[in-house]
Amino acid sequence: MTTNVVIVGAGFAGLNAAKMLANRAGIDVTLVDRENHHVFQPLLYQVATAALSPAEIAAPVRGILARARNVRVLMAEATRVDLARRTLETSAGPLAFDYLLLACGASHAFFGHNEWEPHAPGLKTLSQATEIRGRILKAFEAAENTADPAVQRQQLTFVVVGGGPTGVELAGAIGEMSRYTLARDFRRIDPRLARVVLVEAGPRILPAFSPASAARAVRDLEIVGVQVWINSPVTAISADSVSIGSEVLRSGTVLWAAGVRAAPIAATLGLELDRAGRVSVTGGLVLPTDERVFVLGDMARAVPAGADAPLPGTADVAMQQGIYAGRTIAGVERGIPRQPFRYRNWGQFATVGRGRALFERGNFRLTRYPAWWFWLLLHVYRLTGFRSRALVLIQWAWSYWTYGRGARLIVRREWRQFPD
Amino acid sequence: MTTNVVIVGAGFAGLNAAKMLANRAGIDVTLVDRENHHVFQPLLYQVATAALSPAEIAAPVRGILARARNVRVLMAEATRVDLARRTLETSAGPLAFDYLLLACGASHAFFGHNEWEPHAPGLKTLSQATEIRGRILKAFEAAENTADPAVQRQQLTFVVVGGGPTGVELAGAIGEMSRYTLARDFRRIDPRLARVVLVEAGPRILPAFSPASAARAVRDLEIVGVQVWINSPVTAISADSVSIGSEVLRSGTVLWAAGVRAAPIAATLGLELDRAGRVSVTGGLVLPTDERVFVLGDMARAVPAGADAPLPGTADVAMQQGIYAGRTIAGVERGIPRQPFRYRNWGQFATVGRGRALFERGNFRLTRYPAWWFWLLLHVYRLTGFRSRALVLIQWAWSYWTYGRGARLIVRREWRQFPD
Repeated sequence: MTTNVVIVGAGFAGLNAAKMLANRAGIDVTLVDRENHHVFQPLLYQVATAALSPAEIAAPVRGILARARNVRVLMAEATRVDLARRTLETSAGPLAFDYLLLACGASHAFFGHNEWEPHAPGLKTLSQATEIRGRILKAFEAAENTADPAVQRQQLTFVVVGGGPTGVELAGAIGEMSRYTLARDFRRIDPRLARVVLVEAGPRILPAFSPASAARAVRDLEIVGVQVWINSPVTAISADSVSIGSEVLRSGTVLWAAGVRAAPIAATLGLELDRAGRVSVTGGLVLPTDERVFVLGDMARAVPAGADAPLPGTADVAMQQGIYAGRTIAGVERGIPRQPFRYRNWGQFATVGRGRALFERGNFRLTRYPAWWFWLLLHVYRLTGFRSRALVLIQWAWSYWTYGRGARLIVRREWRQFPD
Repeated sequence: MTTNVVIVGAGFAGLNAAKMLANRAGIDVTLVDRENHHVFQPLLYQVATAALSPAEIAAPVRGILARARNVRVLMAEATRVDLARRTLETSAGPLAFDYLLLACGASHAFFGHNEWEPHAPGLKTLSQATEIRGRILKAFEAAENTADPAVQRQQLTFVVVGGGPTGVELAGAIGEMSRYTLARDFRRIDPRLARVVLVEAGPRILPAFSPASAARAVRDLEIVGVQVWINSPVTAISADSVSIGSEVLRSGTVLWAAGVRAAPIAATLGLELDRAGRVSVTGGLVLPTDERVFVLGDMARAVPAGADAPLPGTADVAMQQGIYAGRTIAGVERGIPRQPFRYRNWGQFATVGRGRALFERGNFRLTRYPAWWFWLLLHVYRLTGFRSRALVLIQWAWSYWTYGRGARLIVRREWRQFPD
């Protein structure tokens, strides 16, 4: 008798769970994902700002798991969980499971304003990253192509909504790009005069960091030309403007880094979800009603014993939860009792740009170059597979010395839909 | 008085002409292209087969010409030439010129069967290359997802139409990918059993090469599992099949590497075009009726003095023509009389895959590893800019040892059109 483990999502949680179960006797794993690649999400903003190429932060799931002979990879969309029948419904047919691991992540949420999405893309997938890259570069082209100062001002205005780490990283990278990389490339406009505005609804950016670190980040952003607007809830976004109450800013490029919402498959469990669409799990990361169904990563609301707040939606949490779930299943099958999940907090990063970053772990803090070097080495080290690491290091070394961004491509969508 | 030079197209011809005119006193250059990047076309098939990333074979035009202060880059579509008014019409308004250089290249031609195009993409742009990459990888996924042997056979059948160098390169790369790279990645199907067929209407492949070299290429293709079908004119292509007379082959992925046709702007000159839509030019690469209008690269039908056939549509020809046109204009402005264009033939390549290539220059021939190493070093050397060279070398070294292909990404088109 083999045990069927179905994992949904090849992000940090799902992939690490699959690795833990690789080549274990008596266990068959099916890993379902609608994409064929795993994305190293913490570097997605570098693709969106033309510093890295998609293939440098992504790896094909089949390639990563080629030697895991008991793992089958299924490129399909998971649509519904049937807990009673222990079946997962997918676009490639139903899958029966003994254990189910739901790790489908989250996408951007527009607080009931889905009509904003076409004007303010979020950053969760490679496709979104290359879309954002194209929009940023096209805005400079549009400004160069017009003699109308009002249009130039609008096209050279970049608004990033949301002052979390992703918003800070995006705004900082756009600031650097306009002040250094593109500085000499145009004849009619001066990219160094681009307006980059980071808009945050709350009283300060980076609320997960200490006030001192957040203040440092504001200064670092200002050095590359980004202005931080706090207490500024966005009330409307259109194709060419952002409104904050009665204020209106004309902008050709608005990027969304504000709210997230767990993947919609969570709703098919028939359980109560929290405001962010997440599923509440026990200390063992399973459903209160079914200990053979794990929910991991951004989909899970996991509150550690003794804590008030749930674990944050970071790569680190997802990775540790995936490893835990894989080990737990392997252990239970060999009769080892379950242990509760313990999150080891290694600290958190936010990066503004070249030589400007923040690192905090409890009361230990790094800023500027020390934090940035630490960030750089850690992220290169963590990239999956030798090749990506070497390539990313070379790219970064080159960008560092020249302020260059090699992947400045606008790829036109000249293709009709795949005819199937 | 400055002389206005308008160059249309930032391919090998247009870019080299712009470089030749860079920072020349008294000359203003406007380089018009609808893309923001220059593509190193000879390596485009490596993007289509997941060996390289788009950014590794492309460079932003503005970046290349940032120091050419007299060159303005305009991202716009050129629509019409008005010879009488000496004006080029573009999507960003009209441009007056003293000299015009038309170097817009060619796109694929389907011999009056444009309805085949959605089912059989050609390979001329980055967007087409990533589309082809997605189709090849999706076919393997579709085969893995079904239990129906007929569907598996169809999805694992790859037909490349056209036995020129591009067709040989594409077919060889698909053969290698299926036999080596993907060999271990699937559970239900064996990618090594994929059928790869190179279909050629004429009596042999690589007609520009000697019969002995072409025969060697056929053997090299067979070694990686590609079958060459000669005397096989395609009579129909649908979403799931290719017909050759009364024969029908079911295929999930058909790629077009057969005919090309010069860019449609050629027709707006009001001159007679040849069958491939090209403009006949004089020995000085200008219109017979107007020596201030150059036509270069794939758009031009340039027959060298004493020769029967026009120069081939290669990167080498385009590059030399661009340099010639730039130098000629600079010379004429200083009173130096024009010289006719002389093409220096450095030889021609065709590459089947790892360690398998052909090189011919007159009676001098190389095959196998010598030809392949020569090809590899020459192409790395020619890549624009330090960064691309280093990255491509590393990628290739890695792929060489592991038979890996790192850029195996299927990027979904989840985005609606750019909202403008």
